[in-house]
Amino acid sequence: MAFMFRKMVVVGVGLIGGSLALATRKRGLVEEVFGYGREEKNLRVAQRMGLIDGYFLHSKGFPKGVDLMILATPVEAIAPLAASFLPRLEPGCLVSDVGSVKEKIVRQMEKLLPSRIPFVGAHPIAGSELWGAAAARADLFAGQRCILTPTRNSSPGGLKKLTALWRRVGATVEVMDPTVHDRILGVVSHVPHVLAYAMVTTLKRTRVDSKDLKQYCSGGFRDFTRIASSRPEIWRDICLANQRAIGLCLGDYIKHLMRLRRWIRDGQGRLLEREFTEANQLRRQLSD
Amino acid sequence: MAFMFRKMVVVGVGLIGGSLALATRKRGLVEEVFGYGREEKNLRVAQRMGLIDGYFLHSKGFPKGVDLMILATPVEAIAPLAASFLPRLEPGCLVSDVGSVKEKIVRQMEKLLPSRIPFVGAHPIAGSELWGAAAARADLFAGQRCILTPTRNSSPGGLKKLTALWRRVGATVEVMDPTVHDRILGVVSHVPHVLAYAMVTTLKRTRVDSKDLKQYCSGGFRDFTRIASSRPEIWRDICLANQRAIGLCLGDYIKHLMRLRRWIRDGQGRLLEREFTEANQLRRQLSD
Repeated sequence: MAFMFRKMVVVGVGLIGGSLALATRKRGLVEEVFGYGREEKNLRVAQRMGLIDGYFLHSKGFPKGVDLMILATPVEAIAPLAASFLPRLEPGCLVSDVGSVKEKIVRQMEKLLPSRIPFVGAHPIAGSELWGAAAARADLFAGQRCILTPTRNSSPGGLKKLTALWRRVGATVEVMDPTVHDRILGVVSHVPHVLAYAMVTTLKRTRVDSKDLKQYCSGGFRDFTRIASSRPEIWRDICLANQRAIGLCLGDYIKHLMRLRRWIRDGQGRLLEREFTEANQLRRQLSD
Repeated sequence: MAFMFRKMVVVGVGLIGGSLALATRKRGLVEEVFGYGREEKNLRVAQRMGLIDGYFLHSKGFPKGVDLMILATPVEAIAPLAASFLPRLEPGCLVSDVGSVKEKIVRQMEKLLPSRIPFVGAHPIAGSELWGAAAARADLFAGQRCILTPTRNSSPGGLKKLTALWRRVGATVEVMDPTVHDRILGVVSHVPHVLAYAMVTTLKRTRVDSKDLKQYCSGGFRDFTRIASSRPEIWRDICLANQRAIGLCLGDYIKHLMRLRRWIRDGQGRLLEREFTEANQLRRQLSD
């Protein structure tokens, strides 16, 4: 069977970029894969693991004949890196990303790229608190959702190819408006990360009788704060790139929390139980 | 080897009470175990699973010759149930509990029980979001911490026996002041539960383009909110019984969260990264 793409460049060979490289190679969707990154050590790991055929550390090392470039760095680096590679991109090269924020990236990329370089934004909802090429897995996207965020400016051909690519690595593709994407992800992912970081900060700064509070954390606390093991730069970038939706959701959250605090202070057992029960019922509809 | 106790009553044969029954029987620490509860169905499950030898549903069914009573119900039910069994308790019967809040319970119990009935409060830091006798496991306490909260009024003999019992089921026993216990558990357990419930409420009440937001929750959200699958009545009770410590910690948390919200709004990338990095470093010191 023919390859879908001849030469793919993955910019940022971390958990997501590396897993996409591995999955596309394993399924024979791309003929050659090259990685770009800042840390040579990580790229060497990626090459040794067979994620990539080669790598480059400077834009002048960008290979010829690239027909697919996937930007998989922290969100704020995506547009600047695309700009640095732009002079070397050949007409028709499909460009996409895997960023967790879409509106800002799509706006930046559409402004940056000429019409001969088609761009469609993407966000595979997969991942873990692990990071780096070493964490890559060929099955990371299997059964997961991948949201594509084309706009009226996007090339229909590019959307079609990208849809096929993500489906072939096992994802369920959904097309969505970038702003809708950002509001949803703000609630289900970005704000929970901020909350988990804030809880760990609270633990760190609380002094009780000179005890080491870490010693008393059970599985519940570890589950609750697991996402605070994620890479800080990634979440700094996401907070900056999705300011508005995160701000809105944090506002709602703080309102709900203040109400719970008031109910606790006032001994409103019935109201607490009703609210906890409603939340409990919804949570039990999600898988473990 | 001789049994440590001849007849144990477990009041509330749920995850914790049931696991203690199972663990003590398995290790030959108690000769007979009787369960009390409101739901006969759960008690039948407990008997079928071999957690208990028999059960009773009314205080008049309280067996004779009981030398250990463990109260393992939601926190607010502990003292009222102890009061209802008090006329049937024989001198020297050791009474303890497994409640997640200690100061209020210890105060109530010391006021209630005459000196011939020794009481020592306990809190095994173990559990999961599962509940009921069916979730009981003989190894639930192995390698976990169990905090005992004797006061100047507690019987030294009772403390000694209870320490031995918890050690024999695999727990590491630590003696602590009830108020210190409540402040620590407020931070590492009670407040995280309130935060998780509030996040699920936020998810439930957010409307984005008529999408079902549940569909977009990944493993990170599921980890973060797993504790919101816990039983609502248990957490209502804990909130009411540990009002002060939870209120203090929620106050600190909201302060940290408001600061993060301000930094996000003002685009303070460096401050965000520094705070996330500090939290990240601490979180990575906890096991996964």
